[in-house]
Amino acid sequence: MGRGDRNISAPYGLHTGVMEEIAGPEGEEALAIDDIEAFKQTFRRHAAGVAAVTALDADGSPVGFTATSLASLSAVPPMATFNMARTSSSWGAMTVGNHVAIHTLGPSSRHLAERLAADQEARFAGDHWTPGPFGVPILAGTTAWMLGTIIEVHPVHNNAVIIVQIDTGALGDEDEALIYHERRYVRPGTTA
Amino acid sequence: MGRGDRNISAPYGLHTGVMEEIAGPEGEEALAIDDIEAFKQTFRRHAAGVAAVTALDADGSPVGFTATSLASLSAVPPMATFNMARTSSSWGAMTVGNHVAIHTLGPSSRHLAERLAADQEARFAGDHWTPGPFGVPILAGTTAWMLGTIIEVHPVHNNAVIIVQIDTGALGDEDEALIYHERRYVRPGTTA
Repeated sequence: MGRGDRNISAPYGLHTGVMEEIAGPEGEEALAIDDIEAFKQTFRRHAAGVAAVTALDADGSPVGFTATSLASLSAVPPMATFNMARTSSSWGAMTVGNHVAIHTLGPSSRHLAERLAADQEARFAGDHWTPGPFGVPILAGTTAWMLGTIIEVHPVHNNAVIIVQIDTGALGDEDEALIYHERRYVRPGTTA
Repeated sequence: MGRGDRNISAPYGLHTGVMEEIAGPEGEEALAIDDIEAFKQTFRRHAAGVAAVTALDADGSPVGFTATSLASLSAVPPMATFNMARTSSSWGAMTVGNHVAIHTLGPSSRHLAERLAADQEARFAGDHWTPGPFGVPILAGTTAWMLGTIIEVHPVHNNAVIIVQIDTGALGDEDEALIYHERRYVRPGTTA
């Protein structure tokens, strides 16, 4: 096992109260490990599809970011969720009633994932997007895009859950999925 | 392009009002296509890591389900989200203050993904789990588990967003990630 790993028999504990309840003789040793790092490592081990979210800020400027938290919430009516930091340069656009475009990415559009994770001023400099419905930026070459309306915003500490009702969209050319895993972009592999 | 695909130049529209705004001459043809199917196809094209959520129901019975919506919300404090149907047999356990275990799966624990998607009475019949903190079922052989407290539940139509603060957890043996894509379980592939 790699550095920072521990066995299931030695749980880390983020709240001392819980540790006191579950820790055996190894409990004190487990507490010495960096628990936040263990949490982060859990999510590095978990794979995620890569999406890009775009919107218009209050002054009409395009904003957007790369998201690995996109999930379907419901098919009827079509709804999706994503999570974000409230420190994001896109946070000001995340108001109930505002429109957002959610794009699913493939290996052919990996450059968009990197572009929308760059400095905000560089994210929309170029011809990799066009104004779509309501002027919201639609990125070119994605596997699909969905245009929706923000129906709920739930801030939690410095982050937020955004719930979007999908109004329209389009499928792009077929491509593999773009996956983020262990800090790398990968393609889908063999059957598990 | 496969059956049901359409080009980005012919958007589907789930709200007629939006279609009227954005549809060109091809708009009427696009409207004839099954828009909900296009939404579903978008998420089939998007890859997702596979997780398993477990809890204890009000009567102390173990409940759980397979989830492809697990996402990190925050690292400090550690928080995660997942989405679920309110028709799920686990819904009764999803109350604020109740504890849940979230497991990330790998190819070695694919059987757990299938087990927790089977009939509810079959999900905990066997020795693939043990009672963990607060009696919450901890599944064996996962890449990691996290034990947390439900801090927010947001019902939306027939579904809900669940927000969990992570209290403790452990990393399991190293394994690849288990990914769900195009209705198949796959491993991470080559660099994209």
